[in-house]
Amino acid sequence: MSSKNVVVAGATGVVGQQMLRTLEDRNFPIASIKLLASARSVGKKLTFKGEELPVELLDENAFNGMDIALFSAGGGTSKTFAPHAANAGCVVVDNSSAWRMDPEVPLVVPEVNPGDIKLHKGIIANPNCSTIQMVVVLKPLHDAATIKRVVVSTYQAVSGAGSAALNEMTAQFKSVLAGEEPKCNVFPVPIAFNCLPQIPHANAFGENGYSSEEMKMVNETKKIMGDNSIMVTATTVRVPVHTGHSESVNVETVKKLSADEARALLAAAPGIIVQDDPANDVFPHALDCAGKYDTFVGRIREDVSHPSALDMWIVSDNLLKGAALNAVQIAELL
Amino acid sequence: MSSKNVVVAGATGVVGQQMLRTLEDRNFPIASIKLLASARSVGKKLTFKGEELPVELLDENAFNGMDIALFSAGGGTSKTFAPHAANAGCVVVDNSSAWRMDPEVPLVVPEVNPGDIKLHKGIIANPNCSTIQMVVVLKPLHDAATIKRVVVSTYQAVSGAGSAALNEMTAQFKSVLAGEEPKCNVFPVPIAFNCLPQIPHANAFGENGYSSEEMKMVNETKKIMGDNSIMVTATTVRVPVHTGHSESVNVETVKKLSADEARALLAAAPGIIVQDDPANDVFPHALDCAGKYDTFVGRIREDVSHPSALDMWIVSDNLLKGAALNAVQIAELL
Repeated sequence: MSSKNVVVAGATGVVGQQMLRTLEDRNFPIASIKLLASARSVGKKLTFKGEELPVELLDENAFNGMDIALFSAGGGTSKTFAPHAANAGCVVVDNSSAWRMDPEVPLVVPEVNPGDIKLHKGIIANPNCSTIQMVVVLKPLHDAATIKRVVVSTYQAVSGAGSAALNEMTAQFKSVLAGEEPKCNVFPVPIAFNCLPQIPHANAFGENGYSSEEMKMVNETKKIMGDNSIMVTATTVRVPVHTGHSESVNVETVKKLSADEARALLAAAPGIIVQDDPANDVFPHALDCAGKYDTFVGRIREDVSHPSALDMWIVSDNLLKGAALNAVQIAELL
Repeated sequence: MSSKNVVVAGATGVVGQQMLRTLEDRNFPIASIKLLASARSVGKKLTFKGEELPVELLDENAFNGMDIALFSAGGGTSKTFAPHAANAGCVVVDNSSAWRMDPEVPLVVPEVNPGDIKLHKGIIANPNCSTIQMVVVLKPLHDAATIKRVVVSTYQAVSGAGSAALNEMTAQFKSVLAGEEPKCNVFPVPIAFNCLPQIPHANAFGENGYSSEEMKMVNETKKIMGDNSIMVTATTVRVPVHTGHSESVNVETVKKLSADEARALLAAAPGIIVQDDPANDVFPHALDCAGKYDTFVGRIREDVSHPSALDMWIVSDNLLKGAALNAVQIAELL
């Protein structure tokens, strides 16, 4: 791969900083790198490969002469600026939800549908964090046994809500442990010592009662897997964890798979580590999976309530496979 | 109801102390009360209705002349001593799992199957905490629409694992917030800032890969509802919450129910509060439900993946409705 001129838009955010670390860690071939953010962050410095780089203003002209732009700057910013980048010949890999369901924009998880990348017209969408780790695991099961329906409940880390949310969680825990009332600015009710069935933390809900996070899991799964017959229902829940989303996933298949068959299929699939010996305390959990690139799966068992279904527990780092890593993997395939 | 001579066995535990508070709070008609525990706790004093009462030794002869014994002393203790109580004419309401699936022992949730109480032969079993709050909500739905299958994922509070587990969680949070490594004695891996798909925290798993907590939800639901055709699969998960179990529950019914119909049925049912206006941040959550007697349900919606199913979020205090309150309610019906 020849070296590329790379833009990171939204470089100061939680995911933007993970993008920088991931580019560094994977030795992405970089000719030049430009860090962009909103006016508020211009002038800040960020370290990349030991060098201090200035944060510059994200504007229409920032993409001239650049090859690839990794966007993690929110849906509105992306809607405005991604077309400018694409017009300047700079391919956008966008981490927001702005373009994901656009029929002209491929939605890609490299382990699942790498071929869709070549259909891009200047913008490629990175899926939602909770969807990515699930489809990595669903793909080999679907290929072998055809998935009919998925019932998923999530246990999502606070880092997915950004750095203000992380700071609020820490402050709340300190307050409660000191015998004081926790204060809420980001979350509607405390997240410390609590679970909130509401993601995102504001304006989450549509007319059918699902949150937007839940409908992302429903719709993005079909698009990434390239099969509209896969039915999904989701309940997405924020839990007091820093990093690492966990998911309890029930999968109904046309062809019955035994737990052993599923374990063998998953162990042979890319990007997956099977951690499944619960009697010896071997199961994936967020603290252990944070900071790692893979998607971890365990607690695989044949569903006692259904003739052809499996239950499992899927964990991955929401900032890495759920965001920065998946975007960098797409950039690598470009 | 005439006043009763009441025994609380396992009075010093987390649930035992809630039993005392609940008897007090509900003005249970008490002629005399005797607090029992193992040798380790004998000599301790506990306060009941403003009086300091000594903890006495739980032995074979402790039940003579007593009417009702509320047991929360673990399965082994219950297996040994409940028959002595029953033989002495003292009816046992047992909170352990020792007797629950015994065909001679009724398993009772007063809102669901109060009539089963009269079948007792000296012992009545109190169901598992995570099962109780679920069946309170399932019952009116089953009566109206016949439940075929339930897929449940739980978010269970640490108080369900006892006071040593609660102390460990607090110590772990303090360590992590101070930048130190959390220590584990009770849990196999840290529960602070983590989610563990393993309940109980040791020797949890059977040959089919389910934990014993999960199989309790599968089997106890059928027995309490009096219908072996209700299929259940469960994934039970410990989360860093003090008190209040949350559950993400998918319910398939023979007759289709709309979300509005379900809300109306649940709002009219005993022991249930519908909290379901998520757009205005109205949904049940553990912090809000702890300390309350009711079972709370929200996030009720028609499942987009199935022609006749509902998703919902059920929360209740695992020490009250999940344990002490349900036991005292059974005693009230006696």
